[in-house]
Amino acid sequence: MFAVKVPATSANLGPGFDTMGLALELYLEVQLEIKSSRDIELYFNGDDKEIIDNKPEDNLLIRAMNRVFQESGREMPGLRVTVENRIPFGKGLGSSAAAIAAGVHAADFLLEQRFSRKQLLKWAVEMEGHADNIVPAVAGGLTTVMLYDGQVYFQKLDFPDEIELIVAIPDFNLPTEKARSILPEKIELKKTVANLQRACFFLASIYNSDFNSINMAMDDTIYQPLRKQFIPGFEQVLHEAGNSGALGVALSGAGPSILAFTINNKEVIGEAMQRAFKANGINSRIIYLRANNSGVKIFT
Amino acid sequence: MFAVKVPATSANLGPGFDTMGLALELYLEVQLEIKSSRDIELYFNGDDKEIIDNKPEDNLLIRAMNRVFQESGREMPGLRVTVENRIPFGKGLGSSAAAIAAGVHAADFLLEQRFSRKQLLKWAVEMEGHADNIVPAVAGGLTTVMLYDGQVYFQKLDFPDEIELIVAIPDFNLPTEKARSILPEKIELKKTVANLQRACFFLASIYNSDFNSINMAMDDTIYQPLRKQFIPGFEQVLHEAGNSGALGVALSGAGPSILAFTINNKEVIGEAMQRAFKANGINSRIIYLRANNSGVKIFT
Repeated sequence: MFAVKVPATSANLGPGFDTMGLALELYLEVQLEIKSSRDIELYFNGDDKEIIDNKPEDNLLIRAMNRVFQESGREMPGLRVTVENRIPFGKGLGSSAAAIAAGVHAADFLLEQRFSRKQLLKWAVEMEGHADNIVPAVAGGLTTVMLYDGQVYFQKLDFPDEIELIVAIPDFNLPTEKARSILPEKIELKKTVANLQRACFFLASIYNSDFNSINMAMDDTIYQPLRKQFIPGFEQVLHEAGNSGALGVALSGAGPSILAFTINNKEVIGEAMQRAFKANGINSRIIYLRANNSGVKIFT
Repeated sequence: MFAVKVPATSANLGPGFDTMGLALELYLEVQLEIKSSRDIELYFNGDDKEIIDNKPEDNLLIRAMNRVFQESGREMPGLRVTVENRIPFGKGLGSSAAAIAAGVHAADFLLEQRFSRKQLLKWAVEMEGHADNIVPAVAGGLTTVMLYDGQVYFQKLDFPDEIELIVAIPDFNLPTEKARSILPEKIELKKTVANLQRACFFLASIYNSDFNSINMAMDDTIYQPLRKQFIPGFEQVLHEAGNSGALGVALSGAGPSILAFTINNKEVIGEAMQRAFKANGINSRIIYLRANNSGVKIFT
């Protein structure tokens, strides 16, 4: 028996579209046990009961495991898999990236770690379609990814402990495909430059522990102005978070969750964000947490 | 009598169009002496003789000084100004930014430092038209600038001492206006994302002292493919520098100079770059230097 634990992630962080991502202390945990029979049993551990999945072969985690076993040329053993997932689906918090990352790492552990992290990452990114959640889910911290000639490269920075995270999770879902469908093919050069300047400034601010101007650096010009149509109250939530003292605020990935950073007064900010959603007819849940700096962990 | 010393700069560094810049150990030095009469005498100190400028009021350095004095409401005193400039003009090495930076700081020194660095920076950027050379000239190091609501913000990183710089300076000039005139109004989203990923990856690689993949990170998709038409041999110079072991290579600012980074074998790389220019009918001068991490200095 062994377990895999993978963090939730928030992609983009404002200006870093398809580039930056941050791992969060909110986890998908999977326990795996080899069985004598060859089938897969998949259970979801809820608050008070365990639910069986009758089509485990369709589950993203199991599909990711199968992919790695296929690549290895070996057959996947029978398994009892128990999932305990704290990452909400369809909220822009990297739940599918976490399932894929857990799957490829669980499979590789069963295969006695025959593949490099780079190789596992490549398959995971192929399955997910983009890299900005997968990479921080695997590596932890604040990551910046680069796709080049079909390969995945990244750099990681430890995210500062003093920054607390506030996530406002509205009670509706926004499929990533829908959020991506409205992106234009071309962007004005001045917007490209604005995002380049802000993404680099944001990264360097984190590196320099100088958080004074990251509210401006997190003001994206590319996708937030388009995606906000799907999120009632988006601008008001950002505005109220900033007014309540947040260092910076941005849509989390494709949304609809909104992520804010602060050094203090997190409850004041969280409540202001919740009120702003409410004023637009949207119920939301607020969670307070920190960044995760370690990424995928395997426990034996 | 006092002196102002300002470094040359290389803007963009590949992906960081209008965003990143690096200060170089190559200087503009200006000596200033207050005279009893009210006029300005301006001299250029060449290798073996001093040349007088008969229209000092047209000189960029003097214009920058005048701008700051106008803002102060005080009249500029009569001065004897002697310029010793090692930064070649029109080569993409920030000669105009250095002149402006020297001017605003010299004027502020004469005004007993009444203005903040932020204010001086703002005037300098207004005079230059963009910020990516001015900021590293003033602050030194590797800088990333952000313009927001008409204000100039930046973050600075010390550039690693172990990286040596090679600059190939071809014997023709490329006016910045001409190099900028061919930029499109819109950029494909995928190119915007490619540059975002590469600029952030480059910056994080420098923080992490992990230089393995910066050759890919420095491969710009926005302006180099357009500007190379003005620079015979551009692709061959990049290719030969990479083949000879350069960590990364890029057009310096608007060009035509080309900047390469290396840990060792700088002469091999420099000679390969020079041969590649020569094969395209272009004579070039190669200089080897390091980054400057201190920016504008005033000596009294």
